Amino acid sequence: MTDASIDLRDYIRDVPDFPKPGILFRDITPLLKSPAAMSAVIDRLAAPFEGQNIEVVAAAEARGFIFAAPLAIRLNAAFVPIRKPGKLPFASHSLTYELEYGTDTVQMHVDGVAPMQRVLVLDDLLATGGTVDACCQLLEKCDAEIVGCAFVINLKGLGGEQRLKKYPLHSLLTYE
Amino acid sequence: MTDASIDLRDYIRDVPDFPKPGILFRDITPLLKSPAAMSAVIDRLAAPFEGQNIEVVAAAEARGFIFAAPLAIRLNAAFVPIRKPGKLPFASHSLTYELEYGTDTVQMHVDGVAPMQRVLVLDDLLATGGTVDACCQLLEKCDAEIVGCAFVINLKGLGGEQRLKKYPLHSLLTYE
Repeated sequence: MTDASIDLRDYIRDVPDFPKPGILFRDITPLLKSPAAMSAVIDRLAAPFEGQNIEVVAAAEARGFIFAAPLAIRLNAAFVPIRKPGKLPFASHSLTYELEYGTDTVQMHVDGVAPMQRVLVLDDLLATGGTVDACCQLLEKCDAEIVGCAFVINLKGLGGEQRLKKYPLHSLLTYE
Repeated sequence: MTDASIDLRDYIRDVPDFPKPGILFRDITPLLKSPAAMSAVIDRLAAPFEGQNIEVVAAAEARGFIFAAPLAIRLNAAFVPIRKPGKLPFASHSLTYELEYGTDTVQMHVDGVAPMQRVLVLDDLLATGGTVDACCQLLEKCDAEIVGCAFVINLKGLGGEQRLKKYPLHSLLTYE
């Protein structure tokens, strides 16, 4: 199967009422089971950023790691993991952000990025954009330059595009 | 830099007293920052399994995902994520295993593997082997065949090799 013939929508499973009643979850695990579809995803995520001198691909755990690691290899860039508190062993920067109820925190090693490094932020799915916005703020605290944010799936209408409007956004699949 | 010239040991950082006093943690984040070293890791993890008809690469979150996703693409295999409870959206199998204090549980989608599928289990690091052993048991409950277990790092003397002795083990770096 050639890349162009792959419709990624065929590899997303709709799961109703997850993680709570009324939510239709877009499950990427069928996509992960197809190496041809995964190769197409990495090709298509990379496409707009080839030749843009991406030095770092940053992503939050855990699903973000699945796409960010092969994308970093593909773009010849560093992969920098952004994690929940207590997971990273070395000295880290933290950023706490607001959730609907309460707060959450993301951390990155102090040597994760250097000032002026060109960073692509990756996640599997854009919904409210809260986590990716926090990752971008953490990276910018370290004086990195956000070249763009890339997603496999964009769930429109949940505010993510608006929240991240200062960055170029690239997503492979959009659901209204 | 060619693959053969890369000494992966140069990309592992020793962090003393993490996650608790007296533990010397082997930090892989310098490795993740080098696309040349990451490519070498994927090549070397794949090497003994090329031509062995690996159909599935399975790995537990979160660091396992980093290596398993590109390895699965490389081996033309499915990537099947094994996760902590509550993370997988679809119907799942569970396995609960003993920790030093208490228990932990891993889950996999019921359609993660089919009976007789040939599976490579991957993790970044082998210590006591508890998590990988649980993943293997979960896969075998589904009648998958474990072809081997691969690790970037093997911490000898913590019991992992003994615990997983029924499986072929492959690791890239060993620390005594």
